Amino acid sequence: MDGEARGWRITRLHHVAFAHGPGTDTEGRLAELLGSDVVHEETFPGFVERMFLVGDSYLQTLEASGEGVVERFFDKRGPALHHIAFEVDDIDAALEELREQGVRLVDEQPRAGGMGTRIAFAHPSAFGGLLVELVQRSEG
Amino acid sequence: MDGEARGWRITRLHHVAFAHGPGTDTEGRLAELLGSDVVHEETFPGFVERMFLVGDSYLQTLEASGEGVVERFFDKRGPALHHIAFEVDDIDAALEELREQGVRLVDEQPRAGGMGTRIAFAHPSAFGGLLVELVQRSEG
Repeated sequence: MDGEARGWRITRLHHVAFAHGPGTDTEGRLAELLGSDVVHEETFPGFVERMFLVGDSYLQTLEASGEGVVERFFDKRGPALHHIAFEVDDIDAALEELREQGVRLVDEQPRAGGMGTRIAFAHPSAFGGLLVELVQRSEG
Repeated sequence: MDGEARGWRITRLHHVAFAHGPGTDTEGRLAELLGSDVVHEETFPGFVERMFLVGDSYLQTLEASGEGVVERFFDKRGPALHHIAFEVDDIDAALEELREQGVRLVDEQPRAGGMGTRIAFAHPSAFGGLLVELVQRSEG
């Protein structure tokens, strides 16, 4: 790290995602622990995404509901933490810089995520096996 | 959730931990992505713990360095997210309530964690396979 200026920055840990199978009471137990309920729920092909607000970040649960990436992950690993998402202030600039650096990406361009966000995943090989998502909120 | 008063609360997502094997450049790549270096490094029996500050939370890396829980996890799962840690304002009160609720715990009493914290792990079976740590900072 040489501290050189760049045109974007990571502003916070947006969420951490935990993948699990269908029909569990994971969300009920987490709500009890956290002292707060799910603040957002959204259905995608193959999974249901739920968000708990914890301080300034979210805990996201991904419930496998059919064929897809969450089910494949769950079939292989069981219930497990799936990825970490960093909020950025300019996802286009971030992806452009990562591409220039040769960082391997799953999403070369941003796509629509939950809660109106724009998201992109790096390939886990880029960060030693850690699956990293970048998120930009809709309002900017 | 019935919103009943309790004598403690979760104040933020303290850290997310990623476990990996020895001799990788995972930290270097993460520092490049995050635009900031490791802010804390601490050696424990069997692993080295490093912290990156991301907004108000930390990304923690756990590098297996010998026999122990991190090495066993890594041998079984490869590099993977290991646990999530919630900061609480009163870890003694939190553990007392969890014990009363019959929540299965790894640590019945707080023990010393990194950066002068007091920590305790719940058993992963308590939250559907998610390994949850509670953390209280040294200053209270």
